[in-house]
Amino acid sequence: MARTVYYTASSVDGFIADEHNSLDWLVDTDHDLPQDHPDHYDNFIKDMGALVMGATTYLWVTEHEPSSLEQWSYEQPTWICTHRDLPLPAQGHVETFAGDVAELHPRLVEAAQGKDVWVVGGGDLAGQFLDAGLLDEVHVQYTPVVLGGGAPLLPRRAPLRLLGVRQMGDFVAARYSLRTTG
Amino acid sequence: MARTVYYTASSVDGFIADEHNSLDWLVDTDHDLPQDHPDHYDNFIKDMGALVMGATTYLWVTEHEPSSLEQWSYEQPTWICTHRDLPLPAQGHVETFAGDVAELHPRLVEAAQGKDVWVVGGGDLAGQFLDAGLLDEVHVQYTPVVLGGGAPLLPRRAPLRLLGVRQMGDFVAARYSLRTTG
Repeated sequence: MARTVYYTASSVDGFIADEHNSLDWLVDTDHDLPQDHPDHYDNFIKDMGALVMGATTYLWVTEHEPSSLEQWSYEQPTWICTHRDLPLPAQGHVETFAGDVAELHPRLVEAAQGKDVWVVGGGDLAGQFLDAGLLDEVHVQYTPVVLGGGAPLLPRRAPLRLLGVRQMGDFVAARYSLRTTG
Repeated sequence: MARTVYYTASSVDGFIADEHNSLDWLVDTDHDLPQDHPDHYDNFIKDMGALVMGATTYLWVTEHEPSSLEQWSYEQPTWICTHRDLPLPAQGHVETFAGDVAELHPRLVEAAQGKDVWVVGGGDLAGQFLDAGLLDEVHVQYTPVVLGGGAPLLPRRAPLRLLGVRQMGDFVAARYSLRTTG
C-alpha cells in the first residue's frame, strides 16, 4: 500500500511560508544541502507516484516557474485541490479537484501505481488528509531560521511518532508517522 | 564568557504551550526520554548558573509545583522579568526585574559565575534577548505532537546556524546558534 506523505520544508518555529507567502528564506540562502542525502528532495521525489497540492502552492509554483504552465514541472500526475478555475499547464497531467480528499485519495493511490503519494502542501490540505485518517507520514526539513509568523506547518492537534531524524547539512530532517496509522 | 541559552521543548509545529497555556501534551505522555542523553534536562541544567523567565512561565511553575513558593525549585539564582507584583518563594534566590533585558544581562552573567544563563521562556522573553543581541543559542526539544496553535517558540525573524541535532528517544534535540553572534 502506497504511503501518503506530507514532505515539506519549515522554519524552526513551524512556518512553511512567511507572512508574505514567500519562500525567500528557504531558497535565497547559502545553506549547505547535500544532494546525496536520503532526505534530499532529489531522492524523496523518486519514490513519489502522484502529487496533490492546494491552490496557493500551485500558484506559487506557476508564478515562480512560469514555464510550468507550458510543461508541468513534475513527471508525476498531479491534483490541485481547489474550487477555483485555475489556468492549467499545456502539457503534463494536472487536474483540479473540488471535494472531500477522502474521495480523491483512491484516485491518487491508483495513479501512483504502487509508489507513494506526496502531499506537497499547504498545511491545511495536509490537515484535511490527517482529519480523514489518510495521512501516513510527515517529513519536515527544518531550515535554520525563525520566521515568527506565516503559513502554519500543520494546523491540527495530533500525536505523532518519531521515525527518525538526521542532520542534512544545515537542515534537520525529521520523519514522523501518524500514531493512529499502521 | 557564559553563553545565554534559550532551552525549551516545542511541538513539531513550533508551540511551547498549547492554546490553554497547558503543557499536558509534553508531561502527560508516555514518551521515551533517555535520562543519560546529553540534551536531557538533567544534564543541561548542570551547566546553568542563573535563570531568567517571564511571568507566565513563573506562574506556571508555581501553580504546578506549589511547594516552589516555599522553597524555590531551582538552586540557581533566578530573575523574573515582569512589571507585576508576584508572590515570591520564601526560600531561594528569586528576584523580579522590570526593565530592558540588556540592563539585566550583566547581572545574570555575574550571578552565573562562569556558567551559562538559561532563558527558560517564554518565547517573547527569548525574543527580547535576541533583539538585544544577547541570545547565543537556541536548543529545541521537539516533542512528537502537532498542536496547531498556542504560545509561539520564538516570535522573531532571524537566521540561525545549526550546531547539531540528535535523536533523544522520541524527541528531536536540535541546537542552534544565532548567526550574528560569536
